[in-house]
Amino acid sequence: MRSLLPQADEGFYTWLKQLHCSSLKIYAMKEGSVVFPREPLLRVEGPIALAQLLETTLLNLVNFPSLVATNAARMRLAAGPSKKLMEFGLRRAQGPDGGVSASKYAYIGGFEATSNVLAGQLFGIKVSGTHAHSFVMSYSTLDDIADSDFKRLVLDCRKKLDYYGTNDGELAAFIGYAQSFPDGFVALIDTYDMLESGVKNFIIVAWALHQIGKKAIGVRIDSGDLAYFSKKIRETFRSVDEILNTDIFHSMVIVASNDINEDVLLALNREGHEIDVFGIGTHLVTCQKQPALGCVYKLVSINGVARIKVSEDPEKMVIPGSKEVYRIYGNEKYPLVDLLQLSTEPAPEPGNVPARGIMVRHPFYESKRALVRPTKVVKLLSLVFDGRIVEEDGNPPPTTVTAHDKLSEARNRCRDQLLELRSDQTREVNPAPYKVSVSSDLYDHLKKVWAEQMPLSELK
Amino acid sequence: MRSLLPQADEGFYTWLKQLHCSSLKIYAMKEGSVVFPREPLLRVEGPIALAQLLETTLLNLVNFPSLVATNAARMRLAAGPSKKLMEFGLRRAQGPDGGVSASKYAYIGGFEATSNVLAGQLFGIKVSGTHAHSFVMSYSTLDDIADSDFKRLVLDCRKKLDYYGTNDGELAAFIGYAQSFPDGFVALIDTYDMLESGVKNFIIVAWALHQIGKKAIGVRIDSGDLAYFSKKIRETFRSVDEILNTDIFHSMVIVASNDINEDVLLALNREGHEIDVFGIGTHLVTCQKQPALGCVYKLVSINGVARIKVSEDPEKMVIPGSKEVYRIYGNEKYPLVDLLQLSTEPAPEPGNVPARGIMVRHPFYESKRALVRPTKVVKLLSLVFDGRIVEEDGNPPPTTVTAHDKLSEARNRCRDQLLELRSDQTREVNPAPYKVSVSSDLYDHLKKVWAEQMPLSELK
Repeated sequence: MRSLLPQADEGFYTWLKQLHCSSLKIYAMKEGSVVFPREPLLRVEGPIALAQLLETTLLNLVNFPSLVATNAARMRLAAGPSKKLMEFGLRRAQGPDGGVSASKYAYIGGFEATSNVLAGQLFGIKVSGTHAHSFVMSYSTLDDIADSDFKRLVLDCRKKLDYYGTNDGELAAFIGYAQSFPDGFVALIDTYDMLESGVKNFIIVAWALHQIGKKAIGVRIDSGDLAYFSKKIRETFRSVDEILNTDIFHSMVIVASNDINEDVLLALNREGHEIDVFGIGTHLVTCQKQPALGCVYKLVSINGVARIKVSEDPEKMVIPGSKEVYRIYGNEKYPLVDLLQLSTEPAPEPGNVPARGIMVRHPFYESKRALVRPTKVVKLLSLVFDGRIVEEDGNPPPTTVTAHDKLSEARNRCRDQLLELRSDQTREVNPAPYKVSVSSDLYDHLKKVWAEQMPLSELK
Repeated sequence: MRSLLPQADEGFYTWLKQLHCSSLKIYAMKEGSVVFPREPLLRVEGPIALAQLLETTLLNLVNFPSLVATNAARMRLAAGPSKKLMEFGLRRAQGPDGGVSASKYAYIGGFEATSNVLAGQLFGIKVSGTHAHSFVMSYSTLDDIADSDFKRLVLDCRKKLDYYGTNDGELAAFIGYAQSFPDGFVALIDTYDMLESGVKNFIIVAWALHQIGKKAIGVRIDSGDLAYFSKKIRETFRSVDEILNTDIFHSMVIVASNDINEDVLLALNREGHEIDVFGIGTHLVTCQKQPALGCVYKLVSINGVARIKVSEDPEKMVIPGSKEVYRIYGNEKYPLVDLLQLSTEPAPEPGNVPARGIMVRHPFYESKRALVRPTKVVKLLSLVFDGRIVEEDGNPPPTTVTAHDKLSEARNRCRDQLLELRSDQTREVNPAPYKVSVSSDLYDHLKKVWAEQMPLSELK
């Protein structure tokens, strides 16, 4: 450090050496929470220099995870609850650690599985994937697979099905894969020709597996028009069941990958498709619509005095002062509004509401205000660090809770909170905005701080 | 691993245990090389299963670094050679490790410094930055800074300059910063009002520093119209030099940050500006135009037989076979073409060219071909791993080479190779494409492999 920052004086290093976090408090939204613009995701309280040292670290640890979880949750909403979503992003992520973060937060956002084995090991996420094109291409002829009972059975099935035009190397690869994973046979069928070779070779091998009492899982397609091919493949499966008088093919799983993003999922829904599982990589771990989330870390109060960073754009204005966020529910099940208050204000209480209701206000537009009568109030920020990591009861978290338990809890919270929203707030086109309001006291406070601290420049 | 992949049989784990890389060879483009679409960046030779295991790791380690280095190099071209570029991306990167990768490869692409202290420590990159808005905001009045000779001198300067309308808290912050870093005073001047407060407070403190024999560095602006404000600030500096009869302000450094990307740099050039240094974060570590680089890892040959992965899109077709890449120069200094050949073909030699020249062909369009007479030929792939990491001489790299030496070498290579290109190939609008051709032998080989391995489907 001294050689990197020679301009810093010795006192800085003495201070660094004795630095500790015993007087630091962090309040945070629970992991997996649905949050809205202008809400504090974290509130950090402590000595100013310590709080400033944490700025980049906290932003780094909040921005990318929140982006990926949001991206994943949007894909989950677009795909619908019945589809399976697998994260395939490691190869396009920002290094190994970016890949592991992406796997973890995609899971929170609603993905089921990851192809990242390390993420599986660290967080107990189901590891899932298929084989590569190069696996298929590494077989050229049927001689590339050693003779076996199963191979002979497969060749017999091919004969009965009269599927001779298919690629022999591909068939050899499928035989090899099915022999190694008789209970996990998913074939990547687009190395040569999906309909003329891949799906037929899959059917041959799946039928052979069936005859030895095993059940193939399905196919993966990684190119071409996914809607068209998935329908063609389902059709083929149904007709094979008819021809063979079996009941095994029509329900085979069809996995699709290749450049899938939220818009592709929505377009596939509109067109109709037969895909059961989506493998999503690049567009999950790098979000094309918004490659970076712009969370900021701002000083809002010092020695009890509210501070404000001026911005010419009111939408970018940070609300000054130490704040709490409450989610307020009415008679229906959905939340009505998130209410920001000064930390010093009493929490709104369902049992203690003025006759006409509580006034909630838009932070910037005087004319936008409303009354609410809460039936339930949830405080969104809770103490997570108080000189050490703590639970809501103020004690350290129990050691029996696994990484997977914590992740599942966050994942369920994300799902439940998204389901709670009104459907017009989560629809794809022109979603209705969810209200984030401030209390009357905070509104007055805001106006006062602005008047005091915002410069008044003269046009000239 | 066993619990994660219960479907794998014991033989797989036995195999994993005895796995070693002694028979693995990797040929690679030198770090920092300028490369073009369809060229192999790496050629991996070895047992098929081992080569397949490396797929995701190699893609992860090549895709993001190449993207960031390319992005940085484009920003360097856009900014021009005389500007300084600082990497400020950690807070928006994919986790701490993504941030460190970004710092490293931004340096190779032509950035000078990073705000990431760890990257500075690991790679010897210059660490640079300024203070935060929150640092300024943590001071409210002049009483927030203890009395000192320097403070009194500053207040005296303010009086002489008659700069009374400026924000007192901001002035206090600048005094504090200048006292701690008298040789590194760069002030962030846009917390309140850039022209009415920030730049004036900077001038007050810089003048005081001058009077004690120190030289301030300059100012940073992080919002607003960067072209307009940089010109206004330069104007102010010049007029202050005139008023005070000094020679210190006109050449003060102006640093700009805030949402800068390649297009902003180009637009600033067109409009004219007075910025000396750019701090670029978000759009460097996450590339909005193309958030992920789509490098792929394909099997091109097995047991000496070329293999091809069929794609309906010829542009996506991978050229089969084990290949070399040669960069060919003519009489001018710039390279004429990159030539892909089969590894078995002899390298083109300047001293051994047929009378009419060497035929180079477009890989897909028969009509596109040309003759070249090389005056210099550079082989782009070299052996970097041969059972262990090796240098070109086949020996392990000397232990005396530091991480910074390697990085500087790559950075110089990137700069030199970009300078070598014709300017119409690097211009911003409609750049002339650089030719990537194949030899006649490789062209014939291509056609043969396609005919053999590409399925012919029937329209129906």
